[in-house]
Formats: sequence, C-alpha cells, structure tokens
Amino acid sequence: MSGSSFGTHFKISTFGESHGPAIGVVLDGLTPGVPIEEADIQKELDRRKPGQSSITTSRRESDRVHILSGLYQGRTTGTPLAMVLYNQDQDSSAYEHVKEAFRPGHADFTYQKKYGIRDHRGSGRASGRETAARVAAGAVARKILEQRGIQIVAYTQRAAGVSCQEIDYGVIEKNPMRAADLEAARMMVRRIEELKAQGDSAGGLVECRIIGVEPGLGEPVFDKLEAQLGKAILSIGAVRGIEFGAGFSLADMSGSRSNDQIFSTGFDSNRAGGIVGGISNGEEIAFRLVVKPTASISRPQASVNSKGEEIEIQTEGRHDPCICPRIVPVVEAMSAIVILDMIKRQAALQAPQVEYSSGIEDKE
Amino acid sequence: MSGSSFGTHFKISTFGESHGPAIGVVLDGLTPGVPIEEADIQKELDRRKPGQSSITTSRRESDRVHILSGLYQGRTTGTPLAMVLYNQDQDSSAYEHVKEAFRPGHADFTYQKKYGIRDHRGSGRASGRETAARVAAGAVARKILEQRGIQIVAYTQRAAGVSCQEIDYGVIEKNPMRAADLEAARMMVRRIEELKAQGDSAGGLVECRIIGVEPGLGEPVFDKLEAQLGKAILSIGAVRGIEFGAGFSLADMSGSRSNDQIFSTGFDSNRAGGIVGGISNGEEIAFRLVVKPTASISRPQASVNSKGEEIEIQTEGRHDPCICPRIVPVVEAMSAIVILDMIKRQAALQAPQVEYSSGIEDKE
Amino acid sequence: MSGSSFGTHFKISTFGESHGPAIGVVLDGLTPGVPIEEADIQKELDRRKPGQSSITTSRRESDRVHILSGLYQGRTTGTPLAMVLYNQDQDSSAYEHVKEAFRPGHADFTYQKKYGIRDHRGSGRASGRETAARVAAGAVARKILEQRGIQIVAYTQRAAGVSCQEIDYGVIEKNPMRAADLEAARMMVRRIEELKAQGDSAGGLVECRIIGVEPGLGEPVFDKLEAQLGKAILSIGAVRGIEFGAGFSLADMSGSRSNDQIFSTGFDSNRAGGIVGGISNGEEIAFRLVVKPTASISRPQASVNSKGEEIEIQTEGRHDPCICPRIVPVVEAMSAIVILDMIKRQAALQAPQVEYSSGIEDKE
Amino acid sequence: MSGSSFGTHFKISTFGESHGPAIGVVLDGLTPGVPIEEADIQKELDRRKPGQSSITTSRRESDRVHILSGLYQGRTTGTPLAMVLYNQDQDSSAYEHVKEAFRPGHADFTYQKKYGIRDHRGSGRASGRETAARVAAGAVARKILEQRGIQIVAYTQRAAGVSCQEIDYGVIEKNPMRAADLEAARMMVRRIEELKAQGDSAGGLVECRIIGVEPGLGEPVFDKLEAQLGKAILSIGAVRGIEFGAGFSLADMSGSRSNDQIFSTGFDSNRAGGIVGGISNGEEIAFRLVVKPTASISRPQASVNSKGEEIEIQTEGRHDPCICPRIVPVVEAMSAIVILDMIKRQAALQAPQVEYSSGIEDKE
Repeated sequence: MSGSSFGTHFKISTFGESHGPAIGVVLDGLTPGVPIEEADIQKELDRRKPGQSSITTSRRESDRVHILSGLYQGRTTGTPLAMVLYNQDQDSSAYEHVKEAFRPGHADFTYQKKYGIRDHRGSGRASGRETAARVAAGAVARKILEQRGIQIVAYTQRAAGVSCQEIDYGVIEKNPMRAADLEAARMMVRRIEELKAQGDSAGGLVECRIIGVEPGLGEPVFDKLEAQLGKAILSIGAVRGIEFGAGFSLADMSGSRSNDQIFSTGFDSNRAGGIVGGISNGEEIAFRLVVKPTASISRPQASVNSKGEEIEIQTEGRHDPCICPRIVPVVEAMSAIVILDMIKRQAALQAPQVEYSSGIEDKE
Repeated sequence: MSGSSFGTHFKISTFGESHGPAIGVVLDGLTPGVPIEEADIQKELDRRKPGQSSITTSRRESDRVHILSGLYQGRTTGTPLAMVLYNQDQDSSAYEHVKEAFRPGHADFTYQKKYGIRDHRGSGRASGRETAARVAAGAVARKILEQRGIQIVAYTQRAAGVSCQEIDYGVIEKNPMRAADLEAARMMVRRIEELKAQGDSAGGLVECRIIGVEPGLGEPVFDKLEAQLGKAILSIGAVRGIEFGAGFSLADMSGSRSNDQIFSTGFDSNRAGGIVGGISNGEEIAFRLVVKPTASISRPQASVNSKGEEIEIQTEGRHDPCICPRIVPVVEAMSAIVILDMIKRQAALQAPQVEYSSGIEDKE
Repeated sequence: MSGSSFGTHFKISTFGESHGPAIGVVLDGLTPGVPIEEADIQKELDRRKPGQSSITTSRRESDRVHILSGLYQGRTTGTPLAMVLYNQDQDSSAYEHVKEAFRPGHADFTYQKKYGIRDHRGSGRASGRETAARVAAGAVARKILEQRGIQIVAYTQRAAGVSCQEIDYGVIEKNPMRAADLEAARMMVRRIEELKAQGDSAGGLVECRIIGVEPGLGEPVFDKLEAQLGKAILSIGAVRGIEFGAGFSLADMSGSRSNDQIFSTGFDSNRAGGIVGGISNGEEIAFRLVVKPTASISRPQASVNSKGEEIEIQTEGRHDPCICPRIVPVVEAMSAIVILDMIKRQAALQAPQVEYSSGIEDKE
Repeated sequence: MSGSSFGTHFKISTFGESHGPAIGVVLDGLTPGVPIEEADIQKELDRRKPGQSSITTSRRESDRVHILSGLYQGRTTGTPLAMVLYNQDQDSSAYEHVKEAFRPGHADFTYQKKYGIRDHRGSGRASGRETAARVAAGAVARKILEQRGIQIVAYTQRAAGVSCQEIDYGVIEKNPMRAADLEAARMMVRRIEELKAQGDSAGGLVECRIIGVEPGLGEPVFDKLEAQLGKAILSIGAVRGIEFGAGFSLADMSGSRSNDQIFSTGFDSNRAGGIVGGISNGEEIAFRLVVKPTASISRPQASVNSKGEEIEIQTEGRHDPCICPRIVPVVEAMSAIVILDMIKRQAALQAPQVEYSSGIEDKE
C-alpha cells in the first residue's frame, strides 16, 4: 500500500499539489444508497478554507468541490466517489526563493532527500491544502455516521498560552479560534495578533469528542481504535502528539485512580477516553492533540540552500499565524473516516450472520 | 486487512492467547540471506520476560522461542519466518472470578461486546503476553537494522512521579526500571514497592531514540513516519499517548522558537524529533509515550458481572506493579519493525533504478 | 502486502518449508462464535495427504493439525486462529543431488535467482506440501459457508487423456482419481500407472462448482469474483490456466449464443459460470482449471548445475504421477476462502445499515 | 482494500461511470524523476478509443487525458499522479429501456442485486469505458518499463473462428483487428461484418508476450506472477479465461514433454510461459486469454424487467461487434502495471542491501 491511501474497508486515496492543476480524493467502499450532495461537502470545506478571519491566511482558495463519480440521482452507488478541487490564484512567485532553499520547519529538505525532486510551489504535496481533500472525504463519512447517531466535535482547547476555561460546544463556530469558550477565544486572538505583528506564530491544543459510538469498534491487536485514530491524526501536517482520555497525566496516577470503575449505571469516569483494550466501550471517545506553531514566519531564520551554503530566509506570502481553527475540521474529518472504517470492519468480522447455538454446550 | 497484522512491505502477523497452547508471529517480506539464530531472539525475549525483579510479576513464562520456518543453514530465505512460544504454567484458576465479571481498566467488557465470546483466562488475547510475539519479530528486524548502522534505545524516563535527571544509556540494562539514571531508578523502585504494598500500581513515561536513520524515510501523506510510529506504539496495550520531539510543549511555543534552524553543519536543534513533513531528516528520531498504571490491582474496586449486577472485585494473581521496564523492549521492537518497513518502502518507491537524465532539461 | 497472505477481510497467512520444522497458517478476521474442532480440519487434510492409493506418492506425512490459538471452549473467538503441522519423515538425502542443480519444471532455478538462497530439501517453500496449510484454512471457511447453505464440489474431469463421460458427485470420494465418473476413473488410473512405469507423469483438468451463493458477491472493478477466484486458483503450484463458465469455447461463439437469456423462472443457461460483471448472479459458480503433469519424473532430463554446467538429472524420491486427485481439496479450500472473504466484503460495503428512504425521491 | 484499487507497491485506483462527469485514475508509489507527458498517455488511449474502424463502435469518446497532479517540470515527483478523462457525447436516451430491465450478458442484474441502486446509463461503472483509466495508468508504467528494456506486445490471435497463421508483430497496428497476420485479419473483419449485419457479435482470443523481464519477479505463494497477472487480466470485463505457456494443452501432455529442459544456453522450450514456481525465469512471459462475444447485440433476446415480468429486449446504440482489437491495449496496460508492481516488490524484498558474508560459513 502506498502512502496516499487511508483505511481498509472504507478507503480514501488523495492526490494533488498546492500549485498543480487540482487536488482531490477518491472514496472506495462507500455504502450504497446514501443521499449526498455537493452542498454537504462544501459546508465542511468552507469551515477549513482560508480567509475566514484576521488570524487565518488571506490567500483565496475557492475550494469549490466537484463530484466526478459514484453518485446517481443524488445517492451513492457503492462505486468510487471522486471529488476534485481545482487550484486557482496560484501565484508561485512568492515561492521563488524556496526553489533552491530549505525553509526551517518545512518539508523542503526532507522531500528533496526522499524524492530527489520537489515541487517547491506552495510547498507542493506537503502543503496544508492537501487537507482539503481529507475534509471533503470526511464530510461524506460524517453524513453516514450522523444517520447512525454519531456526532464528532473538535475545538481549540488552548492556543498561544490561553486555555478554554469552560467547554460550550455551542460557541465553537461562533469565534474565529473555534474555541469552546468565547472569552478565551478573544484572548487567544489578541495574543496571536501580537505574535503575527512580530512576524511570529503560535501553537495550541485541539480536543475532539466522538459521541454515540457503540461498544465494540476497534481491531486488536494492531488496529486498535486508538492506534488507528492516532495514525489518522498524526498524519495531519502540524500535529506532533496525541493523548487519549487522561493521557499523559496517567504517568503520575496510581492504578486505583486511573481505572474507571463500573456500576450498573455505567462507568463512573472516563479516564480511558472511551477505549479499553483497543475497543470502544460506549463512552465518549476523547483525545487531545498538540498543534505546532506555523512554520512559515516572516522573521529571518538561518538555513541553507541546495548547495549547502548558509543563507537567511524569511517566509513571505500569506500564512495562518495559528493553524488551530483550520485544523479543527480536519481532525473531525479524519475521525469520521476512522469510525466509518471501523464500523465496516466490525460488520465484516461478524459476517456471515449464522446461528450456531444448536448443540453447543459450555464445556471446558 | 485484519487487525493482527502490521506493516506493508515488511509485515508481521501475530496470534495467540495467554492461556491457549501458544503465541507466535509470522514475518513476511524478510530480506533473504540474513544470519539469524534463536539466540538473537531469545536475548530480546529475556528482556521482556516476567520475574526479573521485585517490581515485575513473579509469574513464570518460559518464553522459549522456536523458529518453525524461513531459515536455512542459519540464514533467512526470504520466505515467511514463523516463531512460536508455547505457553506453560497456565494456572487459569486465578482467573475464575473474571469469567463472569468485568475488571475495571481491563478489556473484559469491550471484548465481550465486540466478539460476543471471550477467553477470560489470563486476559486471553488482550494479555500483555501478546507483546512477546512483537519482541520476537522486532529482534529479527533489529538484527537487520544494526547491519545498516541503526540503533534503537528506549528507557523509562519517569515512573511513580520520579524522573531521570540525567540520561546515561549505559545504565539502562543495569537497573530493574530500565531507567537511564541509576539514582532515579532506585527512587522509582522504592515508590513502586510502596504502591504494591498498598495493593496499587504506578504509571510512567518511556522515551525512545532511533539513531542512524538516513533522511528520506516515511510515506506522506497518510503513512508519515510519525503516523506509522504512532500507530505502532499506540497499539501497545498500556500506552495512552505519544509525542514527537518537543511534543506537547510546542503548544506554548512560538514559531521562531519551535523551528529547527539549519546551518551548513546541520540542524541546530531537534524539536522536530527527527521528522519533518512525515519524513526522517537524518537527526535522531525522538518520541515519548505515556504508560498507564497497571490495571490489575489487589485493592477492591467496583464493577459489574455479566448479568449487570454490581460487585466488588480484586485482581488476584501476580502482576507487574509498573509495566514500564517490560514495555521498553516492546517499544524498541515496534520501532524496529516500522523502520525496516519504511526502508523497504523507500526502496520500492525508487525502483526501478533507471537513468532518465539524458535529454531532460529544466523547464517550467 | 507480502506474498504469503491471501484475502482482505478474511485473511490467511501461511508459512513453512517441506523439510523445516513445520508448516502452518494463521487465519485473521474469522467470525466469532463458530464451533470448530480439529477433527473438522483433519478430515479435509486427510483428503489431501499422500499415500492414499497407487497413484499418489507413498511418502508418509502425518499432516496432524494442531490449533494453537483463536479457540475457546470449542468456538472461534474472533481472534487469529493459528494451525501448525509439524513435519516428519524428512529424509532430505533424496534431495542431495538437487542442492547444486536445477530440476526442469521445478522452481529450483527461479527461487535461486529471486532469493539468492534456497532451501533445496523437498523443494522447500515451493513444495506442494505448502498446500496443506491452505486446506486447513479452507476447512474452517467451509464450515462457516456450510451453515450458510453453500457447498463446494471439485473433481477430476480429465486426466491422462481420459474424460469423465458423466458427472456423479456421489462417486468422487469413492475413486482414487476423485473423478466424477467411476468408469473413467478406472481408465485414468490404468493410463497413469503405465506412465509411472515409464518414469513419466500425467496432467489433467479439474472442475469446480460452488453451489448456493447468493447474488451480489464480487467487488468490481479489480476484485471481481472471477479475478479473485482466478488469482486464488492460479496461485496453486501446478495450475497453468483457468476458465469460467463456457470459458475458451466462447472464442468461437456469437453473442446471441453466449448470452444467458433471462426468464421469470431464472436464467435459461449458465455460460457465464454464475458470474456477470464480476458479481455472482445466483447461479452455480463454475470453473475449470488445467493441472500440468508432475514435474518430478524419474526419466533422465537435461539440466544445468549452479555452475552452469550441463548435467543429466533424474528426480528420485516418491512423487505423485498425477496431481489431480490431491489438488481437488486444495481447489475447494481456496474457493471457500475467496467466498468467505467476499461475503465479509459485501457486509462491509453495505454497513452501516441505515434507513435513507425518507425524503428521497427519484429525480434525474 | 476495496475493489477499485490494484497493486500493492505500485497501486492504481480508478473511478468513474460511463455517463457521469468523468472517469479517472490515481497512481500511487510511482518512481520519482521519470519524464512523462500527456502525449505518452494519449498515444495509448488513442489505441483504445472507439471509432477506429468499421468493426469498432462509432461512438465518439474524446478520451482526452488531463494530468491533475504528481508532475513537476515534466517529471514525476513520486507523489500520486491523477489523471482524468471528462465524459462527453453522453446521450443517455439510448439506455432508457435498460433503466427497468436487465440485459442478457450484462451486469444490470448483478449490480442491482449487489448495490440495490444502479446507474443504468451506458452501463455505469460496468461500462467498458472504465478500461480507459487502466490504459492511462498502464501508459505510465510502460514508459518506466521501456527504460528497463521491457516490451509488452498483445494481439488478436483468433476472432470469429479465424486464427492467425503466422505471427508478425510488425503488422499488429496496421490492421483494425490488431491481429498479428494481415491475411487472417482481413478474414476476421469480413466474418465480423457479417455477424454485425445479422445483429450479432463475435468472440476471440488475445495473446500477450512480455519480453525482457529478468528472472526473479513474482511473490510466492499467493502473489505468484501468474496469479497476479491472472487476476489483472480476469478483472477486464469480457475476459472469461486465461492460460500461461502451453496452458490447457498441458492436460494431455506427459511430464517428460511438458518440462522445459535446461541447457547451458538456456531453456530449450517455453511451455512454462516464462514463469516457474510463480517466479519469472527470464524467458518471454506468454499467456492467452479468451474474450467473450460482445453482450450488446441488436437481435431480440428474452429477459425480465425489475418487476420480474418477461420482456423482449434489443440492445440499441453503437457497440463493437468484436471487442478484441480494443482489449489489446488494456491487456498490455494491466500487464505493465503488474510487472512494475513486481519490480518494486522485489526491490522491497531485497532491501536493505547489506553485506552479511563475513563470518558466514555453509553448515547444515
């Protein structure tokens, strides 16, 4: 399997560079008969698109989705559903200085070493624009999960040193940070604008909750639910770590505190983050990820060019001073893709549905 | 793909329950001609085996490896190499109380929900014993990587609230915690023994360094090096989080601090943990993971039985009060498996080696 | 994915060389709760084992199956089920002359070229003994399919120039050729014994019918049902061709003859062999394969040794003069594995089962 | 894995319906640095396109390829290369009668049963138009193989009862049948025109040779070279059988005749078709496939509609009376894709290149 596909029983395959003709994604293994329209997908893409506020890049990307296959009379046919977003406004001149130089924090150096050739324009395949294809795919997955009663909510929990003090899902789409606390959001924006003014950028934390997942999803021992979610989230460009449930705080707990006790009414806590033994336990699935500060900053930094000569480099162009708000829909999309894949895997595991009860007695 | 295989170009498939006849692993895609003997594997298994000290379980598991295929005259043949460890000392009576009850922090409940049937003896497939198969597979991968000059070192960085103050790889195998600091190790042991005496257990942090990896490994955009390592590590039973390089501390950094600047002598820092854009950059690959406290504790806990009735449960039997020292070789094994797979993927990507230079001119 | 695994949603991974310690197979993705015992598997293995008659090799292979995992109280647990057959009677001396020579019709030369190292004893991994692992896996798959009302019947249709004149499934297990016609079987045996006396061997045709498969199995456009069955069957050592339904005779038909017309009572013919557009249509799935004559013959043949020098070679040892009767259970096994995998894939495709009818109107 | 991807180390994923917006393909795992231009691909597409002669359909399909990603300055970047062909001239009115009826020999019935929904226009996903995506992908693979000295040649060996009497590769592209014998081609055309005038169609045989493949390709035991080629070819719509080398004629041979003897100058014959033990032996790879007569005929046939009522159906529209000439480039394309994948798998198997010789002595 190559690196641009994700999933086993429901699979997405993405393609595209930032300044090439288009980016896109093919979904294979999609449930047939599901009503989907481009508007369902556009809605999610619009949440990811640039230019939404002072703290997102002012680049214009139309991000208009075109469905090329897999639909008939507004419903999925069970055949591959391909979506394409044509690239526009691709002024590559801002990247001319990168052609022969490696920007700190960017994949310029590693792509050159791996492939021996590199599309430097807009970071090529390594561009954050690649995540639009994930969001498009995730929008389709979410539509199916919603019918099953599964909701996915992500939000900026902390950015530029400011944390949400309360969690109100209702305000997430009402502030430019996609924070769950309006007051905190205001402070985050203020600090990020300060950093931006200094030619700098900020990192943060994003939290995600998957609500309504039945017990039983996850495929031990390697494709455990946290392993698949972890891979999905860590494959997003700026993410450098992930923790489930109580996460890193478990290092200092004792077992008597960390175990979620069970009562007839259910678990009394959710330090497990909804996953035990790699399988969902019916509680909310909860994880947190760290987003590194945007690598593109206008402050001068030390680097080398392709001849190995030391240079000073400043990233020009329009960039997000903090990527958190735009990573939120990507986290939700990848989560939806993992959950749909796992639902299909559980269906495959249990198939065919046969009665074996007759004649079977418990013996040891 | 089913959940008990890992890897694409080098693949391991494990099997086995704690109290069934055996556990084992099949390695497929192994480089032919490599000298391997059972002693190479046994050495690693002995690092993982129980009964090594006061803070590991006193259970006796012989963990004697038997190679069943894939070797000829002491060298790999390129065909699947299968290894089996027969189970012994399987007194299942200590688990009788679990047959109809669900232990907090254990996979009893989720396995029952997922599969509808469950081998309760010694936690069945969900047992930590499953990781012996990973260690056996990893020992083979490491042998190949060592020839390539790649070293993998993991150690307990923190346990029961005590952190290593200095990092000395030379002492890791000389203390029961596999800590990198002898003094810290002594304090860790003391605190864990206290917790054990109280019928309780401890968590911790494990750090891993992969040294000598050339630039270019990792397969964007989904099979990035951190995504594959993340999946591999998060698939280990007690692991609840992972971070790369500066990890979660990046949330509060600015971009001008987090970017590793580049000089003609190389990178001036390694906050990226050796991976940029999902591809190794030639620096040490560095990650840290959190290990939850052992779920099996002898303190009474609240739970329910299979009829949903509330009960009080105490985990009897012999268990590790802190799993960190025994998880260290598992982390190394999974890391080795990922790196070998990635080396093979890079070879596949570049193949066939053809000269295309003639007649090609740079044009835009 | 490496070459020793087959299947996607139900997967088997085999290992083992003819004269190594053991051969075996791991089944992953197995439906939980299915009653299986070693006797179910042994029954199928005994149909494949050598020494059944004058026209099968007199080699003794105990072929005694040992289940190592995945069973609890006689039922599958949904975790990997591993089976091992230990090798016995491995007198490798008969193969000493092959160590440095390449037998015509055997994989000696190609294994040497591919791997650069080769276990020459009993043909190593290229031995027909490898198929015992397939039969063991297939026995488990068949058990599940039988509960679903699916039957698989293969038989020798032609051997040594003699064809079955009538098809009576009831006699297949009552003659050493596994032919579907007792009279033809007697003539086949006579001719094969003659060839054997001359130090020679015979080829033949095997036909297979899969009965009771519902419409809808198969995954266009690449994993069509005939493509997967074709791969499965062509991966069996001596098979050199396969045709579905009317097969090669379609080359000379006109479309008005080859199309199966449809009536309210069903299809009026089955020239499609039960598969249209890569998907089962509810008719019997029918295919035929050609089995090459056994490569091991005692007549002298021209060959070269590893130094490239010309030699004369005679295959010593005990070999089947015609492999058809022993390939029949292998064909059935591989067919069962494909069908079970496809049932699971169809379940995955359709999952999750959601109602989308409300509000959906046919529009164009 | 879903059914619209093929290959493991080099993978293609296709999408698209006949009368939807577009068809296309994504190539993943492509060697970086390879010069490719749209003209390379268009050339192969033009060989497959309709309207080339009196015996191909007069439908107009522009089949103009657009590369959307994976190229930079005319060279592959190692990232996914996506290609799209927009559909035009999609007059679906000719298919109105199929909306509620099942055509004999077509996938109408089976798609309806599998998916529960069906794009009836131009056969939807089951259209032969899907193979244009394969040809586009194959064109890229061929370009790489040619640099390695590998040539692939397919031709119509027999059609409408007429066989080539001699094999001249030089004339294949000079006659509308893509036969290897001009005289035979003329007779084929005459007979097919007669059948067409009667509202009927013809089948045939296609042969393929892969020249210049080094020994060592193929991945036993399941992904043998003939198994992968067999799957690839059997996944093409109208193909109902495949045989390698001497193929079905081996049924009546003796082993002393069928084995290819080996001399210091090489093999004295090629009844194995260039593959032994699932691995290429350095000889020409040779296989033959049967193409069923075009299912779409204008003669009235018996069928049923979606209510199960018996009807009489005539396929209107413009169809190829014999599909052989247009299947030839598809066979070549799929062969190229398999061989490139296998070259990459062999590179992965052998990696990393390490010296193990020192200290290794032959011992038993």
